Amino acid sequence: MAFIDAEVITLRIVREVFSPRVAVIIVAASVTGIKVMALVYDNDNVFAKILRGEIPSYKVYEDDIALAFLDIMPRIDGHTLVIPKFPARTFLDADADKLGQLIKRVQKVARAVKNSLGAEGLTLLQSNESAGGQVIFHLHFHLLPRWEGVELKPAGSQMEAPEALQKIQTKIAAALK
Amino acid sequence: MAFIDAEVITLRIVREVFSPRVAVIIVAASVTGIKVMALVYDNDNVFAKILRGEIPSYKVYEDDIALAFLDIMPRIDGHTLVIPKFPARTFLDADADKLGQLIKRVQKVARAVKNSLGAEGLTLLQSNESAGGQVIFHLHFHLLPRWEGVELKPAGSQMEAPEALQKIQTKIAAALK
Repeated sequence: MAFIDAEVITLRIVREVFSPRVAVIIVAASVTGIKVMALVYDNDNVFAKILRGEIPSYKVYEDDIALAFLDIMPRIDGHTLVIPKFPARTFLDADADKLGQLIKRVQKVARAVKNSLGAEGLTLLQSNESAGGQVIFHLHFHLLPRWEGVELKPAGSQMEAPEALQKIQTKIAAALK
Repeated sequence: MAFIDAEVITLRIVREVFSPRVAVIIVAASVTGIKVMALVYDNDNVFAKILRGEIPSYKVYEDDIALAFLDIMPRIDGHTLVIPKFPARTFLDADADKLGQLIKRVQKVARAVKNSLGAEGLTLLQSNESAGGQVIFHLHFHLLPRWEGVELKPAGSQMEAPEALQKIQTKIAAALK
């Protein structure tokens, strides 16, 4: 996160008093403070690296707009992430038209996740900024397949075994072919 | 939710035994059960009634595609719901193109919620089917403004006072004018 502070301080001479000993200049200071928080997209975030192929992922879907892959610290079996190929820090700063295209991919992958794993429901979660639960600053949607009585684990609590991830990857990817 | 059960039961005579006292017919029953869950949109859900104006709401935004209003049992101050004007039970069954239009409204309202309340982050939550946390079966997005150190209350835990809701409604609605 970068801060750009633009501050305009206007000094206006109100009265000039000259005496033998000292020159006093009385000024009124009006301060116009414009604080611009420039929330800059970081090209070296983990998902940017996954998009560039620098870090491997358990990919289940890919097209020109989006990439979907398994969360390696799943909150529940089948926990899948959908990210845009275009740079966007959060849901809030994404280009609206591109977001409209992206959400169709999120829906497509969500249907496949739910159906291929025989889930009874699906929870969609999307976190913005640290206060909102965001850890990686590339816009991402969490798709969490749900079953009655099965609670979600806390975020980032446990790394899943590669064999378990591969098994789920195969099922979801097959439903998206 | 409506269930349509289509069941084909095939009875095949395996052996016929006739005795003076009783005729025994041994059959093998092969059952082909096809259970079709027709997930029908219910026109009498609470949000459909809000859309028709039959139930009042703390409205913050409305256009031809979407309606946004405050959750009266907020999980955090400023908890806002965005729903489509078109009928859709869940995120999964919504028309993809309409969903693309809807998400732009969700983003627009999300920005206003975060900015007008001076939130540090925002969590977007969208639940599908009972197992996924859905209670009202009209597609809806929860917008939860977030502040560091302020936890979300459990869903539907406490009704908010009208004065508190009106105060927040005014702030968010003003940002969307």
